[in-house]
Amino acid sequence: MYFFVNDYNSICYPEILDALRESMDESNVGYGFDSHSERARDLIKKALGDEDVFIRFIPGGTPANILGLTCGMRQQDSIFSLATGHVKGHEAGSIEATGLKLELIHKDGGKLSVADLKEAMKDFGSEYQSHPKKVYISNTTELGEVYKRKEIEEIYDFCKENDMYLFIDGARIAAALASEKCDYSLADLTKMCDIFYLGGTKAGFLFGEALIIKNDKLKEDFLNLEKQKGAMLAKGFISGIMWERVFEDPEFYLKGSKDAFAMAKKLSQGFEEKGFSLAYPFESNQVFVLMDDKDVERLREFAGFETMGKKDGKNICRFVTTFRTSPGDVEGFLEKL
Amino acid sequence: MYFFVNDYNSICYPEILDALRESMDESNVGYGFDSHSERARDLIKKALGDEDVFIRFIPGGTPANILGLTCGMRQQDSIFSLATGHVKGHEAGSIEATGLKLELIHKDGGKLSVADLKEAMKDFGSEYQSHPKKVYISNTTELGEVYKRKEIEEIYDFCKENDMYLFIDGARIAAALASEKCDYSLADLTKMCDIFYLGGTKAGFLFGEALIIKNDKLKEDFLNLEKQKGAMLAKGFISGIMWERVFEDPEFYLKGSKDAFAMAKKLSQGFEEKGFSLAYPFESNQVFVLMDDKDVERLREFAGFETMGKKDGKNICRFVTTFRTSPGDVEGFLEKL
Amino acid sequence: MYFFVNDYNSICYPEILDALRESMDESNVGYGFDSHSERARDLIKKALGDEDVFIRFIPGGTPANILGLTCGMRQQDSIFSLATGHVKGHEAGSIEATGLKLELIHKDGGKLSVADLKEAMKDFGSEYQSHPKKVYISNTTELGEVYKRKEIEEIYDFCKENDMYLFIDGARIAAALASEKCDYSLADLTKMCDIFYLGGTKAGFLFGEALIIKNDKLKEDFLNLEKQKGAMLAKGFISGIMWERVFEDPEFYLKGSKDAFAMAKKLSQGFEEKGFSLAYPFESNQVFVLMDDKDVERLREFAGFETMGKKDGKNICRFVTTFRTSPGDVEGFLEKL
Amino acid sequence: MYFFVNDYNSICYPEILDALRESMDESNVGYGFDSHSERARDLIKKALGDEDVFIRFIPGGTPANILGLTCGMRQQDSIFSLATGHVKGHEAGSIEATGLKLELIHKDGGKLSVADLKEAMKDFGSEYQSHPKKVYISNTTELGEVYKRKEIEEIYDFCKENDMYLFIDGARIAAALASEKCDYSLADLTKMCDIFYLGGTKAGFLFGEALIIKNDKLKEDFLNLEKQKGAMLAKGFISGIMWERVFEDPEFYLKGSKDAFAMAKKLSQGFEEKGFSLAYPFESNQVFVLMDDKDVERLREFAGFETMGKKDGKNICRFVTTFRTSPGDVEGFLEKL
Repeated sequence: MYFFVNDYNSICYPEILDALRESMDESNVGYGFDSHSERARDLIKKALGDEDVFIRFIPGGTPANILGLTCGMRQQDSIFSLATGHVKGHEAGSIEATGLKLELIHKDGGKLSVADLKEAMKDFGSEYQSHPKKVYISNTTELGEVYKRKEIEEIYDFCKENDMYLFIDGARIAAALASEKCDYSLADLTKMCDIFYLGGTKAGFLFGEALIIKNDKLKEDFLNLEKQKGAMLAKGFISGIMWERVFEDPEFYLKGSKDAFAMAKKLSQGFEEKGFSLAYPFESNQVFVLMDDKDVERLREFAGFETMGKKDGKNICRFVTTFRTSPGDVEGFLEKL
Repeated sequence: MYFFVNDYNSICYPEILDALRESMDESNVGYGFDSHSERARDLIKKALGDEDVFIRFIPGGTPANILGLTCGMRQQDSIFSLATGHVKGHEAGSIEATGLKLELIHKDGGKLSVADLKEAMKDFGSEYQSHPKKVYISNTTELGEVYKRKEIEEIYDFCKENDMYLFIDGARIAAALASEKCDYSLADLTKMCDIFYLGGTKAGFLFGEALIIKNDKLKEDFLNLEKQKGAMLAKGFISGIMWERVFEDPEFYLKGSKDAFAMAKKLSQGFEEKGFSLAYPFESNQVFVLMDDKDVERLREFAGFETMGKKDGKNICRFVTTFRTSPGDVEGFLEKL
Repeated sequence: MYFFVNDYNSICYPEILDALRESMDESNVGYGFDSHSERARDLIKKALGDEDVFIRFIPGGTPANILGLTCGMRQQDSIFSLATGHVKGHEAGSIEATGLKLELIHKDGGKLSVADLKEAMKDFGSEYQSHPKKVYISNTTELGEVYKRKEIEEIYDFCKENDMYLFIDGARIAAALASEKCDYSLADLTKMCDIFYLGGTKAGFLFGEALIIKNDKLKEDFLNLEKQKGAMLAKGFISGIMWERVFEDPEFYLKGSKDAFAMAKKLSQGFEEKGFSLAYPFESNQVFVLMDDKDVERLREFAGFETMGKKDGKNICRFVTTFRTSPGDVEGFLEKL
Repeated sequence: MYFFVNDYNSICYPEILDALRESMDESNVGYGFDSHSERARDLIKKALGDEDVFIRFIPGGTPANILGLTCGMRQQDSIFSLATGHVKGHEAGSIEATGLKLELIHKDGGKLSVADLKEAMKDFGSEYQSHPKKVYISNTTELGEVYKRKEIEEIYDFCKENDMYLFIDGARIAAALASEKCDYSLADLTKMCDIFYLGGTKAGFLFGEALIIKNDKLKEDFLNLEKQKGAMLAKGFISGIMWERVFEDPEFYLKGSKDAFAMAKKLSQGFEEKGFSLAYPFESNQVFVLMDDKDVERLREFAGFETMGKKDGKNICRFVTTFRTSPGDVEGFLEKL
């Protein structure tokens, strides 16, 4: 059985379990104020080329999104997001549950543009409306696209001009940075937004994301908010140990994602060679393929993957690669295709 | 340096890391629907002697409290808690942030009684007030006390009579069950409340708690709530693997807590032999000792512990033992005392 | 200057001020428990032909919508509404601010259909989604349409089949009932939904709406919720006096709305005779007319009205009549047109 | 029957109904942007001696408290209030329902002091706690006390030193200003806090309060918040007309409250002459008298009043005077006493 269901299906990098075992005899203080967490934060700052950021390790993507979107917000403030945004349709109302409104923008494709924002802003400004204060994008997008540097910079400029904050959901930012389509690096990220996170769950960690706050306003009293939202693990040092080990070697964070990208590329080419069409352009570790019902049924016998609605009368099938996907996996699967 | 700061200072039982390593080559489905989680739930049900419960693994105590207190609640509903309750003073407004009001009961000591509830209820019933719908207690209490079976049963009966739910914060329920003062066992718990959790974080796990829902009303649509509150880890199978390994041997869950209790007893006796008074009766793995400033300063040189306010003009010093506290640790510390 | 801006631009029916003046020397108990409020509720029950409803007078449309949508809801529950729904775009995030998510349905026109709901429901059912529990419609709709009895009954049946509640925003329900297009009466309303309100603000009252709860589940502990949301006026007897006076004569509640409908019809016919097209079919006291910029500018000199976006390259101009619009007003305006 | 139950039991000043009737033929724009509201705001600014305030008319005390306490707040921010504060025990969780936590201070008496705040602040500062950002007091207090100028100024200074805002609930601020105990006037209020309101409901209006925002930070995007909380009446001009009429004569706002104070003084003296003790010192239009059960029962036959708990084994009975309480009422009552 070939497993292309998602990028969070295996435990973690073996190096992470090694690091935990090496620390088994330690006693550490709680809540992320331990020396491992401190060192991990220093290593990440170095990799980002930015000392002026506030970093906290958060247990998962949903709490990272909740914190990234609630920090610095008043009750009348709202958030622009695409209607396809992860926080809209995949988190059971997690943002609205905090009292904030998502103001949704409808369009084809998974990338928000500055033109979309300009158009959307026309509907706001009166007291009948919420007060837009933050913009949410994810990179890669829900459709596996990788934002270009210029696209993000334009959005960020627009945010600054309009007294709004830009938050980037980075659950798959390692996949974006590892893509051949990406024209920026880790060391550019803190110049491109107010707050974002480096995904860990989908990049070989046991769990967790590193939330990076660049804008000073959003750092204020952040720890109280983190505690309030249930996102401050008592054993914060476990996150510290994981992030420390991974960032000790600055190449390591993206290594597995680069492997995953190479496998996705191979997979995508294989699909096209066998006559399948892609639903969206191939840009990262998620390959979206159009298939009729018969093919879906046939492939289900030897492969795990998700279907996500229809396009042009065919099923959109998602095949995801991870750091553990091997050339043999892809070749074996393509042979049976 | 002797470390008695808390019960969440070390990684985990070695057996848990072993279990994770053994599963390194697996691919599992996400969100806690994998076979490890399924088996872990079955093993826990067996240990509880109750097939009729709904179980989910939650990443930490704060999200477990948030879920335990929000499930089944409408907007006008409120929660009775002691003013010393963990959810009041240690979670940065996590419950109020969901819109629910804690109705606080003030008294000495950490145990809520049915008499307290009866007295408190007198203030309610008009439309100017919130509508009390849940009762929060923790076992052990914030002061390390262990509830007696009769005390909990009386509260639970009162809840049923008044159309309220009883939630037990079980962050330290293993410590309670492992105490000599405890007159009930794991197999009694589902008869004593509507919803509670088995703590993992403070009982030797990497992280996480097992939330156990007995009352059918509170099970309804629970998964949507869990997702909304950011408490559904993508790699839910990691929790599953941990809880499965621990409950494969029904004695194992309490083993470390029993060791911790024995060490706390030894420590408590040692303090008393050396002429120190306890701030609260010794009942579990937390020993609260009264000390003057000079002693606190002196002990700080060779031991880690917390101070928590004053009583009778002296400092209340908390010494906590864990599954890793050894007889040698306690003896060495007591010698220096 | 002819004023067609809205239906809440004048004080109230003179009869209402008379009633207040007649009660100037009374002392009444607060919060709507006075004898005027009691009698008003009895009169309304009689007009509705239904003794089995719970009635409260709420100061305005937004709080009535907040209460109608929050009552009986748990935190994971959500609400279906058209994207054009008043609660989506005109109340500054009032519903999300309570923590509830609006699940929006996009379509042309202002009427939600059972087919829309069936289609929308396909996206729900997993734990990644909110749990749809209520349906919001307004009658008349935001576009001035009047629901047919069958249309509402189908939605209500669908709600019951799917364990959801139907709430009808009745800010303009008097306008709906007064329309020639309406095939039901006041006495039918409690059989067509779980909860709704009779609008007062837009039907000649100083302020206020009468919220009518039919479903027993939604009546539970409602007063606590009303108080919590800031919607329980201390001088509730003022509402009581107004509703009592209006419902003393069962014809009176709709009288002004019938006059407004007649004037809107005359206005609508006048527009069409002068060659203007309507943006939406004429059904109630709001007439939506398509105009080019030059006409808008010209009319602004002698008339007040709102423009609401574009259609077919022309401005959608809204002309609203009220109980105070006279034949002379309409004729004078049409002459100048 | 003598009615001393509360200060919101009669319609309003006759002058207010007159003003409404005089405007019956007008058409006004909605939501408080009409010319009456504009002029009323100008008149109030003049009476306050402060052009630099932002004023909005809010339908009642609970929404005024909700707005006063939520504006400018982030999700981790909290509010200090006495445990006897109106927002704690009389509004059904209205503040917590917005997600904000009230941090309660326990003491005898209804006045918060800067010493109380200093003591309370000791418990805050860690990430386990909420972040105190606002202080709530009411003037007069729940016990009818009138704050001294120095007492408020000390609190306000403390707030500024600690980066907190001071909000004064002014539901009965007219009663405070009309008291002989008051050492400040209307023209001092905007120098003593960041935000407060002038009560209307308990000062002879049909309904409504004038919320006065002095601090620029709290003015930002306030209208969106007002709309969101359901506190923006469509017919805002009705409030405008009322406040305009009352502030046309700068003496008028306090006139009825001065009459009420004189009657309360007469009443209080009468009680003492007849040998009754006061539960709290007499300072404003609320007189709290200690009575045994027999007296309570006897008085119930010819007078309306509330009982509010016990003190020294006797019932605390509250007698409230209003602008309509006449010397004859008080004399007649005292005779029967």
